[in-house]
Amino acid sequence: MSKHLFLYHTAEDPFAFPAGPGTLKLRLFVQSGQSLCCTVIHSDRYDSPGSELPQEMERTGSAGAYDIHEAVLRTETGKCRYQFHIKNPAGENVWYGERGISENREQAGAFQYAYIHHPQATLLPSWTADAIVYQIYPSSYNQGTLQGIADKIPYLHELGVTAIYMTPIFESPSEHKYNTSDYYKVDPGFGTMEDLKMLVDTAHRYGMKVLLDAVFNHAGDTFFAFKDVLERGEASPYKDWFYIRSFPVRQAPVPSYETFAKAEASMPKLNMDHPDVADYMMEVAKYWVREAGIDGWRLDVANEVSPAFWPRFRRELKAEFPDLLLIGEIMHASGPWLRGDQFDGGMNYVLRDAVLEFFAGQSAGPVRFMEQVLHQEALYNDQANSAMFQLLGSHDTLRFLTACKQGGRGWDRESTSLSRMKLAVFFQMTYIGLPMIYYGDEVGMEGATDPHCRQPMIWEAQDQNMLLQEWYKQLISLRKEHEVLRTGGFRPWFTDEPRNVLGYVRRSEQDRMGLIINNSPNAYQLELCNYRPDKTVLVDLLSGLTIRTDKRMLVEIEPFGCLMLH
Amino acid sequence: MSKHLFLYHTAEDPFAFPAGPGTLKLRLFVQSGQSLCCTVIHSDRYDSPGSELPQEMERTGSAGAYDIHEAVLRTETGKCRYQFHIKNPAGENVWYGERGISENREQAGAFQYAYIHHPQATLLPSWTADAIVYQIYPSSYNQGTLQGIADKIPYLHELGVTAIYMTPIFESPSEHKYNTSDYYKVDPGFGTMEDLKMLVDTAHRYGMKVLLDAVFNHAGDTFFAFKDVLERGEASPYKDWFYIRSFPVRQAPVPSYETFAKAEASMPKLNMDHPDVADYMMEVAKYWVREAGIDGWRLDVANEVSPAFWPRFRRELKAEFPDLLLIGEIMHASGPWLRGDQFDGGMNYVLRDAVLEFFAGQSAGPVRFMEQVLHQEALYNDQANSAMFQLLGSHDTLRFLTACKQGGRGWDRESTSLSRMKLAVFFQMTYIGLPMIYYGDEVGMEGATDPHCRQPMIWEAQDQNMLLQEWYKQLISLRKEHEVLRTGGFRPWFTDEPRNVLGYVRRSEQDRMGLIINNSPNAYQLELCNYRPDKTVLVDLLSGLTIRTDKRMLVEIEPFGCLMLH
Repeated sequence: MSKHLFLYHTAEDPFAFPAGPGTLKLRLFVQSGQSLCCTVIHSDRYDSPGSELPQEMERTGSAGAYDIHEAVLRTETGKCRYQFHIKNPAGENVWYGERGISENREQAGAFQYAYIHHPQATLLPSWTADAIVYQIYPSSYNQGTLQGIADKIPYLHELGVTAIYMTPIFESPSEHKYNTSDYYKVDPGFGTMEDLKMLVDTAHRYGMKVLLDAVFNHAGDTFFAFKDVLERGEASPYKDWFYIRSFPVRQAPVPSYETFAKAEASMPKLNMDHPDVADYMMEVAKYWVREAGIDGWRLDVANEVSPAFWPRFRRELKAEFPDLLLIGEIMHASGPWLRGDQFDGGMNYVLRDAVLEFFAGQSAGPVRFMEQVLHQEALYNDQANSAMFQLLGSHDTLRFLTACKQGGRGWDRESTSLSRMKLAVFFQMTYIGLPMIYYGDEVGMEGATDPHCRQPMIWEAQDQNMLLQEWYKQLISLRKEHEVLRTGGFRPWFTDEPRNVLGYVRRSEQDRMGLIINNSPNAYQLELCNYRPDKTVLVDLLSGLTIRTDKRMLVEIEPFGCLMLH
Repeated sequence: MSKHLFLYHTAEDPFAFPAGPGTLKLRLFVQSGQSLCCTVIHSDRYDSPGSELPQEMERTGSAGAYDIHEAVLRTETGKCRYQFHIKNPAGENVWYGERGISENREQAGAFQYAYIHHPQATLLPSWTADAIVYQIYPSSYNQGTLQGIADKIPYLHELGVTAIYMTPIFESPSEHKYNTSDYYKVDPGFGTMEDLKMLVDTAHRYGMKVLLDAVFNHAGDTFFAFKDVLERGEASPYKDWFYIRSFPVRQAPVPSYETFAKAEASMPKLNMDHPDVADYMMEVAKYWVREAGIDGWRLDVANEVSPAFWPRFRRELKAEFPDLLLIGEIMHASGPWLRGDQFDGGMNYVLRDAVLEFFAGQSAGPVRFMEQVLHQEALYNDQANSAMFQLLGSHDTLRFLTACKQGGRGWDRESTSLSRMKLAVFFQMTYIGLPMIYYGDEVGMEGATDPHCRQPMIWEAQDQNMLLQEWYKQLISLRKEHEVLRTGGFRPWFTDEPRNVLGYVRRSEQDRMGLIINNSPNAYQLELCNYRPDKTVLVDLLSGLTIRTDKRMLVEIEPFGCLMLH
């Protein structure tokens, strides 16, 4: 064994976390390129030495520099002491514990998971697991109104959508409305509170949930409190609601107060550590759930808001509305916000980066893609992973089809762009978490980044890509039909780097599905013998073709094709 | 560069944390055994690509499987985007970011520290940095009373102690009093509220702080609420204050309720998620500060108490008493509790393990000792490290001198035990954090683990080890005299594995001190040329000897000797 073997684990989320009642899931990062067998030896942490039981760990795959090994321990008391034991094929072995790596078991020390607290506190809303989310940019959807959106609920229902998330709808002078004037008022351009209620009611009648977008990192400069500060300066009772650097308050050429991003004068940063501001926004958050009956909040720029606010936000909202879904917008690794005390899930831009690179850009092969998928999954506990909004694009990015046209290899990048987008959608609809469709992607809308990605929805049938829409429908329908696609675990199956093909598996205790993606312009032949010894007949759910696996069997996958084997 | 180089970093504490106004400290773990140059490339996270500035990182030392590289970034906005760039001597290089390690900069992604929030919220009490803490087990100190302890304040003052921490003093039927009967009453065997006030006043007159021990993980079975549950069973309004498994409540042979550790019937676990229980204990915590004027709390079994409680505990207590010190008892890696929202510091048993192994047991050499010191330091941010109670022993362990007698190598283990303890004390008093002396250690008390480590304090002069006591006094006095020993950074200097000698440095912007420990029964010669080019005269502060370093200079260190070079 290398003298310098590197392992990493810490007895906290996402390396150790409850995974259902009486269980503790452990994750261990093991330097890749080794062939190591990992075992975890564990006991109640008050049991005397010698009472530990060994449990083999499962290598889930490589995330690049490190392999991921996992184990789910049963613990009656919720107080765990454990050490890892790592053995190489030559029989050499080391121990790993809270004091590091050592050949000497005692010197390695033991990790301690002190006590598993109340996993029920982090249960997801009952409707979440089955959700297909659809993001709407209200100004551009249908007549730019809530009424217009409500009129399209039947369309969304037919597509298979079960939840819509709308970017901000509260009064604001901008089109995007991320600079809020009045947190208690629907923007008159969109409609009224009555329109919102009607929209929510309509959605609910179709079994569809509605999420709104809350901007608590900053207000608009037309927000009453900031206007007061602008007018009265230091005499304003609201001066501490913001971070004013100097009085009198100046907006140009450079604002004399802290703002969102860099000097966005119309977006003064809110001091969410101020009790009155925190109370105000708490009430806002509750108001719209109570009054309009919405089903969740997406929280804008959540990672820049005071970390003291979100645990309170969750506690109070979940106490009153246990079925409310809370999604934090963090455009990067979101671990600290997804450990059960803040958000249920996030907007998964890190996964999108990997999808973009593999399908749209073709700048990474299947090995790296699979590594990236596992890498980002390892940032979170299981529950957070199951509530991530898995997006291909949003109002803040270029559209996926456009990325496919710009990216890709060879002279045929344009002609294969749609096929590659279809594969990305296939991955999205057969991966864990909550698929989120950005409005219009399903009919082939194109557009570079903001503002081009925010163009009016295409409603004219002759301008819609019906084949793409059918693809979405088929995949959504298969996801709904097969629980394993919604709640099963994800495991890499194989990668064929030179031919740009990969396979993965979704699996649960009851079911198992094999998914294969051919991300290349060449047909691919796959040998399926021994795929699953207990089943000799497989069906490709996409084509309906039956495949017998009782003897050596070759399946052909078309260029940019995919299989869903069941 | 190895294809399988392993690095680890995550954009959160203790890998990224504010280190003073406008600064972000980064820590990177780099697989050891390589000779790599690490640079961090950073900018405001809203600056466009290309605006990043490079900053070289400092390799602080090896922690075993990994080396630690650190950098302190200046950030005006508190919003950082950064990537690591790692180069080997052959000129090969890789990038490391939130998407992992890659030769391609873009594919590595960038880490994001979203926003630095209010570092002042985690400022330590003003008196902390200079503290020398002394732990008292009240039953065994002086007449077993608070009055008896108060009588010894002059003794402690002369020793150099600036803060005393007493294990629980509240009413309880046991000697150790960790099963509280009445959280609002001083145990009558120890005295009264008036005695406590007098003790605190006496201590304060001597410039000494007083910390008490709060047990919120469990109550005693004589606590009124639990007695009510015992008497009234399911009808008790307090039944949800505990975790009762079945009614009627049974205490023997196995308790029918959750307890501390394993089936400690006299210690029913408290349900701190119950709002009434949390409110009750909040009030207890405030009461003793308000009424008796104590200066801090040490929180028993803090890692098994509901994680929702401690942030509230800190918030409310620090708001009312900003100078209160909060120390969590976590006998293992304590990271999750020391990130600024819960405790200021912990009881550092992980460091004690390393000290025990090196000095008492001689079962590890200087290389491993230094690795272990860096390993545990890397578990925490700088501020938490500066508030750790650095102990050699406590009421829960065998005494350090006893460990020295039992451990060690060779026939002379007994005769060298005192020398080895003196070296450990030297390390304790010249290391970061807050040295904590367990009562009696300073006069050479011995004792195996509980109950033997809880014997009455030796007060008869003829039974006290006066030389050891003088050693404590000398070191404490030097620590007080030289700020760099209290607040300077720690860096390894050298290790001589075969001869069991090591050196380290404490350093600040103004000052620098070299510390050398010869942990062997042989004299050691050290060559000091080029130790510090800007100074040609060094003084050993222990012996007063002057050392000229202008030419090649050999210093002899006696067996089990040490030097404090200034």
